[in-house]
Amino acid sequence: GVLYDGGEGGGAPIAGSVEAVARLKRSRLKVRFCTNESQKSRGHLVALLRQLGYDISEDEVTAPAPAACQILRERGLRPHLLVHDGVRSEFAQVDTSNPNCVVIADAGEGFSYQNMNKAFQVLMELENPVLISLGRGRYYRETSGLMLDVGAYTKALEYACGIEAEVVGKPSPEFFKSALQQLGVEAHQAVMIGDDIVGDVGGAQRCGMRALQVRT
Amino acid sequence: GVLYDGGEGGGAPIAGSVEAVARLKRSRLKVRFCTNESQKSRGHLVALLRQLGYDISEDEVTAPAPAACQILRERGLRPHLLVHDGVRSEFAQVDTSNPNCVVIADAGEGFSYQNMNKAFQVLMELENPVLISLGRGRYYRETSGLMLDVGAYTKALEYACGIEAEVVGKPSPEFFKSALQQLGVEAHQAVMIGDDIVGDVGGAQRCGMRALQVRT
Repeated sequence: GVLYDGGEGGGAPIAGSVEAVARLKRSRLKVRFCTNESQKSRGHLVALLRQLGYDISEDEVTAPAPAACQILRERGLRPHLLVHDGVRSEFAQVDTSNPNCVVIADAGEGFSYQNMNKAFQVLMELENPVLISLGRGRYYRETSGLMLDVGAYTKALEYACGIEAEVVGKPSPEFFKSALQQLGVEAHQAVMIGDDIVGDVGGAQRCGMRALQVRT
Repeated sequence: GVLYDGGEGGGAPIAGSVEAVARLKRSRLKVRFCTNESQKSRGHLVALLRQLGYDISEDEVTAPAPAACQILRERGLRPHLLVHDGVRSEFAQVDTSNPNCVVIADAGEGFSYQNMNKAFQVLMELENPVLISLGRGRYYRETSGLMLDVGAYTKALEYACGIEAEVVGKPSPEFFKSALQQLGVEAHQAVMIGDDIVGDVGGAQRCGMRALQVRT
């Protein structure tokens, strides 16, 4: 919605955005790409963006799956993964035996009744159910139209289980702070550009950053 | 959860419930069965219950699909149906061309990503999106375990579209009032027996009925 619209064959760049990124890269400004993309690994995402013409490398990307892995490690959590196959490689080093939490990401077609029900049952069997959600997006645009995002399915599990998910990714303050740290700048020195008034603009502003909204 | 637990082969009666219904039928008390079952037509449900040993006929059942059909007719609504094939026959007389609302029921395996996304897209294309939900149940028990109910998926669509669903079925006051009318008794003369503290007990009490809760 900011750089490109996803879809069949990788999607399409938004007019002017390839050149806008190139211009930023030529300037003295530091640039970092903060995404809630949770269907693809960073490697896959960067390959797609490069193919669409963007000058971008994997170490310039802040994404929720690696942030979730760090939380899982720190807290000794073993997730049941309700995620797309495209992002599963990010969790390769994580112990998923005998799960004591659920990680939900944008699973796309993977949001079958069977898969949702399995995640629900895992949560209901835990004494202290922990649900970690990679973002809270309502929907996103693909070239074929609007698509339900992870936030809708997170709501479904929250309601069914009577719990509240922990969100990793925008608009979580930790996520923006980690991006700022990776850039080596203070919040007041940074501007966030996004298309989501809550996830991008609101989240950044609450961290002390300025923010610009573009239309999806 | 009150009379029987659903599942493979039609499920199983809860111990004592077949005899309890028979005893009520032998008494001078009027009996009506109020269900949020929205996977099956009333005909199918009654056939199942009779097979399990219950003395019950179709005209003793208050169910959400017929109530929804009446609302659709009264308001000139043409639904996109996100429902189980088992209940589709209840909507046989309803015009579903060029939809101007969505009706969601317990679709079970029908809650695929594709079907959910289609319902979402129909709602997002409407100027005044109307979502009619047959119940708000969080989950129900089958012999194989707990299963996600329609309420979870209604929440998902509400969140994604930024709307609130209209609920047909328990705990909607209209639903209890129509059951009382069908019995020909006043609220204070009736007692509701159910297993859901919100849907059954709370809903009935708000209509001026007394209510008894049994454990699922």
